[in-house]
Amino acid sequence: MFECKIEIRYYETDMQGIVHHSNYLRYLEIAREKLSRKEFNMGTMDFDELGVFYVIREAETKFIYPIRFGDELSIRISLIEYTGLKLVHTYELYVGETLCATCRTLMVSIDKHSFKPMSMRKKFPELHKITNELLIKHSVEV
Amino acid sequence: MFECKIEIRYYETDMQGIVHHSNYLRYLEIAREKLSRKEFNMGTMDFDELGVFYVIREAETKFIYPIRFGDELSIRISLIEYTGLKLVHTYELYVGETLCATCRTLMVSIDKHSFKPMSMRKKFPELHKITNELLIKHSVEV
Amino acid sequence: MFECKIEIRYYETDMQGIVHHSNYLRYLEIAREKLSRKEFNMGTMDFDELGVFYVIREAETKFIYPIRFGDELSIRISLIEYTGLKLVHTYELYVGETLCATCRTLMVSIDKHSFKPMSMRKKFPELHKITNELLIKHSVEV
Amino acid sequence: MFECKIEIRYYETDMQGIVHHSNYLRYLEIAREKLSRKEFNMGTMDFDELGVFYVIREAETKFIYPIRFGDELSIRISLIEYTGLKLVHTYELYVGETLCATCRTLMVSIDKHSFKPMSMRKKFPELHKITNELLIKHSVEV
Repeated sequence: MFECKIEIRYYETDMQGIVHHSNYLRYLEIAREKLSRKEFNMGTMDFDELGVFYVIREAETKFIYPIRFGDELSIRISLIEYTGLKLVHTYELYVGETLCATCRTLMVSIDKHSFKPMSMRKKFPELHKITNELLIKHSVEV
Repeated sequence: MFECKIEIRYYETDMQGIVHHSNYLRYLEIAREKLSRKEFNMGTMDFDELGVFYVIREAETKFIYPIRFGDELSIRISLIEYTGLKLVHTYELYVGETLCATCRTLMVSIDKHSFKPMSMRKKFPELHKITNELLIKHSVEV
Repeated sequence: MFECKIEIRYYETDMQGIVHHSNYLRYLEIAREKLSRKEFNMGTMDFDELGVFYVIREAETKFIYPIRFGDELSIRISLIEYTGLKLVHTYELYVGETLCATCRTLMVSIDKHSFKPMSMRKKFPELHKITNELLIKHSVEV
Repeated sequence: MFECKIEIRYYETDMQGIVHHSNYLRYLEIAREKLSRKEFNMGTMDFDELGVFYVIREAETKFIYPIRFGDELSIRISLIEYTGLKLVHTYELYVGETLCATCRTLMVSIDKHSFKPMSMRKKFPELHKITNELLIKHSVEV
């Protein structure tokens, strides 16, 4: 599990006075970027240069408690499945001790140009290895 | 099932050249608003005046095919469950004949001021009745 | 002057209960797209195919009256300057009879690949001519 | 002048591969919030509790150089005018040594409930004094 802070922005609130639910998927993306930077020392732009896009295939969110502007939001993200092609992450969004949402995403690595699935195992065995080690590290914790 | 067109906006694309996945939840909200206006002749602002917020409790999306700026997007939305308190909608996002995404949301009606669940059955039996009829209409089609 | 309707979306409101000011620039972009489609029968994607990007160099907005979800917003857009390279548009945002904002943008046509200024006069004399005619049409009205 | 870092988010890019211009106004808002927290030890939510909204009346931006995901963006913000009711800020957006944009906003303090102008000088003389001192501090630097 990797934990990071997310900065809530004023314009993300709506007239209900709370963060609009569509922003949660954006927060997850930020958490994945921070996880990637920490574990791979690489971000989306680096994968882009290698010709790799990660795209979302599935996303699920349970909204438990509203988040407000001014809240200190943190996300706990874990890589729980990895096949060389697919990655499944789970997320818990916390404000203090309060669990505000749980999420799950399934991503696939694709070729930037053809938009076709691209196995990291074959194309980038080094990155594949690090991802596998991350999977094992996060799995042990559960 | 109710079908409506969604206008894709340029800024919703990202540097992958496609609509960013977080916008899909926003499109669903627009589809619900259009459905509500057609079936209830009421929108979010009207429910707001009655003291009712509908809030998202669960959202699931399967992303099947990318959507691009310039695509003519339409959403087919169905109410498939309704308890007086909970509403479950399913959605299919089409560009022409291509199914681009399928989604499901679970919403709950809450009191605008207390943010506590509020049964429409008890508080607004007329609206409850119309919602029930919509459920039956949409269920028959499946 | 060309007038078009803009659909206000719920998530564009903020916790002040009004449309967040940052969305106005997005509405202007939608108005330009609609103007372009009507006058050129071409949109951003068509210019993209020709290798042309229009980019914003300057934007000014005066916010006069708040806009709310449920308001029927229309934008009156005029092309008031055109040099073959630069385009200046002015905008008035109306809800009914109420003038809610006035805006001005300066755009420049650039080469999609080099990001360098590209004169439409030289590269696309046909499009240049239509733009000039639009300028004259809009100027006469003032 | 106060300088702060702004985190660029992936979804803020568009299909031109750069940050969409509408996000700049959002970055300015974040910079104002950070300035306010540092100088007043108060943020938007604290002013909200006092019944004060700050609303944008004018915004101007000159876009000089595109900003990309992965860029380290910083904003230099200065309060250059203050009347007790109106605040004028100027901003410079930098990526490294590159000046990417300059902006100016005019804000007005209003009563949260009536949406009418509210003089901070009269209502909150303590806050007025601190704002005045900030104005002097920033003015001296120019």
